[in-house]
Amino acid sequence: MPELRRDPIVGRWVIIATERARRPQDVSRVREAPRGGLCPFCPGQEDKTPPEVYVSGRPPSAAANGPGWKVRVVPNRYPALMIEGDLDREPVGIYDRMNGVGAHEVVIESPDHAAELAGLPETEIAEVLFAFKARILDLRNDLRFRYILLFKNKGANAGATLEHPHSQLIALPVTPRQVAEEIEGARGHFAHRERCIFCDIVLQERKDRSRLVFENEEFVVFAPFAPRSPFETWIVPKRHESNFEAEPKERLGLCAAALRSTLKRLAVALGDPAYNFIIHSNPLRDPPSPSYHWHIEVMPALTHVAGFEWGSGFHINPVPPEEAAEFLRLVAT
Amino acid sequence: MPELRRDPIVGRWVIIATERARRPQDVSRVREAPRGGLCPFCPGQEDKTPPEVYVSGRPPSAAANGPGWKVRVVPNRYPALMIEGDLDREPVGIYDRMNGVGAHEVVIESPDHAAELAGLPETEIAEVLFAFKARILDLRNDLRFRYILLFKNKGANAGATLEHPHSQLIALPVTPRQVAEEIEGARGHFAHRERCIFCDIVLQERKDRSRLVFENEEFVVFAPFAPRSPFETWIVPKRHESNFEAEPKERLGLCAAALRSTLKRLAVALGDPAYNFIIHSNPLRDPPSPSYHWHIEVMPALTHVAGFEWGSGFHINPVPPEEAAEFLRLVAT
Repeated sequence: MPELRRDPIVGRWVIIATERARRPQDVSRVREAPRGGLCPFCPGQEDKTPPEVYVSGRPPSAAANGPGWKVRVVPNRYPALMIEGDLDREPVGIYDRMNGVGAHEVVIESPDHAAELAGLPETEIAEVLFAFKARILDLRNDLRFRYILLFKNKGANAGATLEHPHSQLIALPVTPRQVAEEIEGARGHFAHRERCIFCDIVLQERKDRSRLVFENEEFVVFAPFAPRSPFETWIVPKRHESNFEAEPKERLGLCAAALRSTLKRLAVALGDPAYNFIIHSNPLRDPPSPSYHWHIEVMPALTHVAGFEWGSGFHINPVPPEEAAEFLRLVAT
Repeated sequence: MPELRRDPIVGRWVIIATERARRPQDVSRVREAPRGGLCPFCPGQEDKTPPEVYVSGRPPSAAANGPGWKVRVVPNRYPALMIEGDLDREPVGIYDRMNGVGAHEVVIESPDHAAELAGLPETEIAEVLFAFKARILDLRNDLRFRYILLFKNKGANAGATLEHPHSQLIALPVTPRQVAEEIEGARGHFAHRERCIFCDIVLQERKDRSRLVFENEEFVVFAPFAPRSPFETWIVPKRHESNFEAEPKERLGLCAAALRSTLKRLAVALGDPAYNFIIHSNPLRDPPSPSYHWHIEVMPALTHVAGFEWGSGFHINPVPPEEAAEFLRLVAT
């Protein structure tokens, strides 16, 4: 059973895997890889994954766990957390631990092994976002869970090991500290000004335009004022909304357009870089918030800056966001 | 002039380089590399670096910036921050910025290009720690500076580009948020219990022993209870002390022994991995603290886990610290 452990100084929770099959020195080979040359995410290989928990595109008459789907969500075969069990939160001397209870799912974004999310038509990217929403709405019924992390690792440098286009979902019994800090910071701004700080940022970025990359009726894409890494890019809804899963279909369609434009621009500008994106949304058990505002943060993995920087929390970014944004604006998509 | 910019939501400061020599898409080539095959850190090449600000081992009669040294500290030729100028802290709409004023220095750890810090004799590692201390004591006289980050990037995967053994120092006009959080967390523990949390951790680790790697009279080396990455290892003084630079020579000698043992064990156990270490110490303008406790955090760069994890602050560690510690204990050094 994996464990969740809390750092007693700063309160950060980490997942510690406890399976003992590997020797400690084999850590660089921990991630799953296709065996025997067959991709477990390809149509026809549906029996190579655990049974699907969500599917779109397959006619209702067709059998489950067969081909014919557009988006398919399955439990991760090598999950970081286990869906069964009680939390059993307990002290270990001055430390805290609990069982690694949670969900770890894979969102297979397309049946096409060679596709890239950025290259899919807008409607198909929207189908992926609909899948994200459906999974949140289902998993939030499990009262053990407090937060759902939705993210994509694309490319080996960003932590991906399977090529087939996919993103991931981790449902957690705790709220990650970085999310909690963001919520706390936004609450502080609201306490002083009775305005959402993300709404203020959206206003300033749309007025200033120097960091703006793209916008449509509902979403704005920009390089943040203080980016941690080159070409960090945020996708933020213009209208205030704290919860990703509260967005109606039409607005998720416009989100898909913004996401597609962002990923395409990054792919063209930077030569198809590895990247991560993370959906930041309100915790599951909190009421809709006037101060917090969901958004997507996209981080290309361009350099090895992450070494000392992620250990110290102090970042040196060699590319000013104004230059990055200008460069991304000029890309033909 | 580089800039320091503050994220308005979580209050994180980042350094934004603003030199315009490079095109944004060239970010992966931003770091310095030896040109013409000659290493600028080697003896005889002293004129390839800015003039030294500290040196040890060269007889007092010998000329500055010539060979004969054991440890040599020079300003970084491509500094992330500039030593000259005023901070000019100012708002940019809802954002904050200031001039990127600070010091960025390179600590050349040995004249031997092919040496590794882990392979140097204890006395020579101690010379490196004496250099760290001397530079802090000098730079803290500059009242613009609030924090000094001392760190080492070893190997390309950890962000190093020059082979010659060296570490780095960055003096900052702000305290990095992660440091501030650590200090705040330790202060919270002290407020409740009137004990330093690091002292409590040292006690528990020495009693428990399952995560212990090494100890001598003054220092204890262990895998932390909630490590962010495989084989994360901390070196903590047993006696309470908030400031690295307050340590006397003898204790720095024992710190060198602990650091050497740690780096050697990691090198043997993991096949000479890339790694980072960071010295965590009390901010320059704070009085000596009863609640904070300086220490060194060592992070081998083994996997690409840093992708999504460093963006979300949520870490999945496939190696339990008890297994990592056991493995490191058994290594012959």
